[in-house]
Amino acid sequence: MADVYIEDVQVGMALPQINKGPLQRIQLVRYAGASRDFNPIHVIEESAREAGLGGVIAHGMLTMAFVGQMLTDWAGVDRLRKFGVRFIAMVRPDDVISCKGTVVDRFVHDGDQLITCEVWAENARGERVAQGEAVLSLPSKRP
Amino acid sequence: MADVYIEDVQVGMALPQINKGPLQRIQLVRYAGASRDFNPIHVIEESAREAGLGGVIAHGMLTMAFVGQMLTDWAGVDRLRKFGVRFIAMVRPDDVISCKGTVVDRFVHDGDQLITCEVWAENARGERVAQGEAVLSLPSKRP
Repeated sequence: MADVYIEDVQVGMALPQINKGPLQRIQLVRYAGASRDFNPIHVIEESAREAGLGGVIAHGMLTMAFVGQMLTDWAGVDRLRKFGVRFIAMVRPDDVISCKGTVVDRFVHDGDQLITCEVWAENARGERVAQGEAVLSLPSKRP
Repeated sequence: MADVYIEDVQVGMALPQINKGPLQRIQLVRYAGASRDFNPIHVIEESAREAGLGGVIAHGMLTMAFVGQMLTDWAGVDRLRKFGVRFIAMVRPDDVISCKGTVVDRFVHDGDQLITCEVWAENARGERVAQGEAVLSLPSKRP
């Protein structure tokens, strides 16, 4: 992670993309343990089929975490002020997920230099699987 | 758990049995997270089949934990001095595991009142899946 300053950021700029995957089933097992979300549709093939999903699907929050990693890899974990996504499509084992974003606003609030980013995750077919918005507070080069 | 005193215990006596299961696949996922043993043969059907196991098998340490629970339910968690089992047969989802034991020795060491128990776990067909030995230190009614 390099230091990112508000002066380096312009509206319309793309955030550095990260790619995650191919997603492994065992990662879903690990994420179940880490998140304490033991819904069997994420880890037990049979249960996912019975639920009509055709097989296990990733936890939505894992996809969100990938998008979060893109933001914090770029700007640092202490910079994120607000972050939300909605889940659009299912993510499955073997999917490769690309996390992307664009700066859509830059503003000052209570003396903080802030940016709003549109962020999303897409699969290898270019379909968005999650999308949302993040607000980051960035340091300034000027004291 | 009732208090168990050395005076209540005779060689040849059976320990109170506990039954665990039917074993759920999701319990193996939970145990993977709790133990940090993410070997896919315990949680991913496909990997277990590829490994020639015909399907997922329980972590041996989970079976051992069941036997441990029989001991600590009976005598208390602070009473176990030594505990080992060897794994004999595979445990699979839907198995019901009965944990049993017998007191095989009673002795004094360094002023402690100790018992040795033969302990084992068996499936619903009466096949032993794990067996071993435990040493417990028990309190005396005499001051």
